[in-house]
Amino acid sequence: MRAYDVILKKRNGGKLTKEEIEFMVNGYVKGEIPDYQMAAFLMAIYFRHMDSEERATLTKVMADSGDKIDLSPIPGIKIDKHSTGGVGDKTTLVVGPIVASLGVPVAKMSGRALGHTGGTIDKLESIPGFRTSLSEEEFFENVRKIGIAIVGQTANLVPADKKIYALRDATATVDEVSLIAASIMSKKLAGGADGFVLDVKVGSGAFMKTLEQAKELAEAMVDIAKSHGKKAVAVLTNMDVPLGKMVGNSLEVLEAIETLKCNGPDDFTELCLNISAWMCHLAEKGTFEECLKMSKEALESGAALNKFRELVKYQGGNPEVVDRPREILPMTDNIVEFKAKVEGYITAIDTEKIGIASNYLGAGRKTKEDTIDYRVGIEITKKIGDYVHPGDTIAKMYVSEKSEINDAVKLLEESYKISQEKPQVKPIILSIVK
Amino acid sequence: MRAYDVILKKRNGGKLTKEEIEFMVNGYVKGEIPDYQMAAFLMAIYFRHMDSEERATLTKVMADSGDKIDLSPIPGIKIDKHSTGGVGDKTTLVVGPIVASLGVPVAKMSGRALGHTGGTIDKLESIPGFRTSLSEEEFFENVRKIGIAIVGQTANLVPADKKIYALRDATATVDEVSLIAASIMSKKLAGGADGFVLDVKVGSGAFMKTLEQAKELAEAMVDIAKSHGKKAVAVLTNMDVPLGKMVGNSLEVLEAIETLKCNGPDDFTELCLNISAWMCHLAEKGTFEECLKMSKEALESGAALNKFRELVKYQGGNPEVVDRPREILPMTDNIVEFKAKVEGYITAIDTEKIGIASNYLGAGRKTKEDTIDYRVGIEITKKIGDYVHPGDTIAKMYVSEKSEINDAVKLLEESYKISQEKPQVKPIILSIVK
Repeated sequence: MRAYDVILKKRNGGKLTKEEIEFMVNGYVKGEIPDYQMAAFLMAIYFRHMDSEERATLTKVMADSGDKIDLSPIPGIKIDKHSTGGVGDKTTLVVGPIVASLGVPVAKMSGRALGHTGGTIDKLESIPGFRTSLSEEEFFENVRKIGIAIVGQTANLVPADKKIYALRDATATVDEVSLIAASIMSKKLAGGADGFVLDVKVGSGAFMKTLEQAKELAEAMVDIAKSHGKKAVAVLTNMDVPLGKMVGNSLEVLEAIETLKCNGPDDFTELCLNISAWMCHLAEKGTFEECLKMSKEALESGAALNKFRELVKYQGGNPEVVDRPREILPMTDNIVEFKAKVEGYITAIDTEKIGIASNYLGAGRKTKEDTIDYRVGIEITKKIGDYVHPGDTIAKMYVSEKSEINDAVKLLEESYKISQEKPQVKPIILSIVK
Repeated sequence: MRAYDVILKKRNGGKLTKEEIEFMVNGYVKGEIPDYQMAAFLMAIYFRHMDSEERATLTKVMADSGDKIDLSPIPGIKIDKHSTGGVGDKTTLVVGPIVASLGVPVAKMSGRALGHTGGTIDKLESIPGFRTSLSEEEFFENVRKIGIAIVGQTANLVPADKKIYALRDATATVDEVSLIAASIMSKKLAGGADGFVLDVKVGSGAFMKTLEQAKELAEAMVDIAKSHGKKAVAVLTNMDVPLGKMVGNSLEVLEAIETLKCNGPDDFTELCLNISAWMCHLAEKGTFEECLKMSKEALESGAALNKFRELVKYQGGNPEVVDRPREILPMTDNIVEFKAKVEGYITAIDTEKIGIASNYLGAGRKTKEDTIDYRVGIEITKKIGDYVHPGDTIAKMYVSEKSEINDAVKLLEESYKISQEKPQVKPIILSIVK
């Protein structure tokens, strides 16, 4: 087999066989197929796409390219969740404890900040002492004992995706639905769960800007999961506004704890309950409606909050963070308010710019080597549909001496649209794909 | 400017600016843009194509990437010819002398064998002593003195094309009309002529298999030439059969000399007269019809033959080749006849296979380092429309001890179609694009 012929076949719209996909992916990982042939191949896929079978095969071949987690020693149906990435998305911090408290084992690998979006692992690391890197023994031990562990991805998880993603990122071949779906689902498959709840974000703060694009991706991911005998539901959720009010690391942990105490923002609370309910439902704890009710009870009874406390404790963090988060978490009193200049309704927020603004304050990384300032971020005090007068505080910036405040302010100014016409406010849950 | 953004723009169907095309091509030649980005860019062009202006710019930027020949010291209108490559195509060997004898300066750079097609330079080198590598001074001196010189391409002619072509060849991005046209025309522009007659081959022995493809390419090339203030005519010619009867190196020189003596095959003679006439017409020697008449006279009077003799002499070859070609040229008596097995009309010849069969006999190169056996090749004794009986000789293979005769025979067997229905015989000139 020659890479040339496989590129030509896909370029001409042909359907690739398992052998051809294996040849390309494994050859590329081993360095036998050069970057330039893979780049041409990826661009051909961009234009010709892949069908359901090709996608499923690509995902499997990628998943098999490195280490895989075997969760079978953990009893029960293991359900993983995944978010395609948004701004203010601290869902795992609330959902994990809810479902763990309901007896669904959570053996979760999470990611770090990427582009304008934050990462669960970075957020957890803002809790003093919290270790996101556990040995395999500790990881399994914790899940067995308290039903939950959240760690960073192991180094050799899906090396094919790492190498291919870096190339896509340099060759304008990122935004093709099969490639996105295979990239995400290969890591999910390698993670070893029995089912997946996929939180597909849609809107100005998401990678998918339209509901149509998001649906296509959701359908592709669910289809891939089912092709491999896994359960899957995709929840399409609104990312035209930041999720909840807090964007940053300590700030988001703070908001997650408030939500576990039933004091969280409505949109975020609703999302967490829905994601939890789908996870419990896939874990065969009851109908979706029953699971939604159980999830609410887990919040109201304090069971989920206690589970979070256990999680923090078992991973080396200070469990008092649950009681006194503002004291334990690294925080700052250095706040710069961003105020309305005109009167009217907030009709739109370019949420990606909010994420980038938060990075300018220090909440993200400019380069891989950069360190995160856990203290900084943005509190969104007014959202779409709110009426503001000149001088009203729209957002609070939590800043440090290193924050690039002017750049952040410029982005916030560009981000908010204010007009006289009252906008329609979208629900948090837009659609379900299963 | 970033390569990523230029790839993205073309991928999304945008029209590239001069600056963007310069950035990509020059950056790639300098090694500042990596292979993988250029590969993705080329595949995006494959799918999105280029418009007239982008093509013209690409061609110019490529032409400017290395040395260019300045033909202005030679008086008169310099007209170059180019063939897109066929089997048995020794046209330059006849056309060059005809037009030179009519006062059109021929300062020509020609190529070597490529794939299943032969090359003028290899053919000329079968004449003992013939030097295809002249100093610039010799080259100009010869054109000034006898009106003709034919040399190989200088090493630094259009390095952008060399580098980009090699990448296209490895990434299945060869067959896109803008890229093909720019590749050919960049070398023509760098060659410095004032006008071009483009012999675009169509059919089973050509790179363009259909008239439609060939027309598209012809129009693109003529358009590029005109965009740069050059004259151009494309002649679309039949390559569903080998041109003339001879395929090989010495064999084709022999046939060219016979043609210059008015004893050549009809199809080849007609083609040579037409190409010559268009060249003379572009050089403003008269109307096309007048030029066609002058070209015939140049053959019949022996003026063209004499010019060929001068060409050979001035480039160090033995001029007696004109008088006693079978003695002077390296030839072989070792002939294997390929015979008809059934009775009927020859209805089709897969001419590309004839070219490959000739290579198996030793007339081409398997690798760049391979040497050519000038003696070997194929004489086509029966062509489309001829009626054959079992045992009739269809082709003669001129072979050497190194010839892979069995492989060649297999290809000949696959190549010829014989049936009872009399086929229509296509004319040699299919269409003109100007």
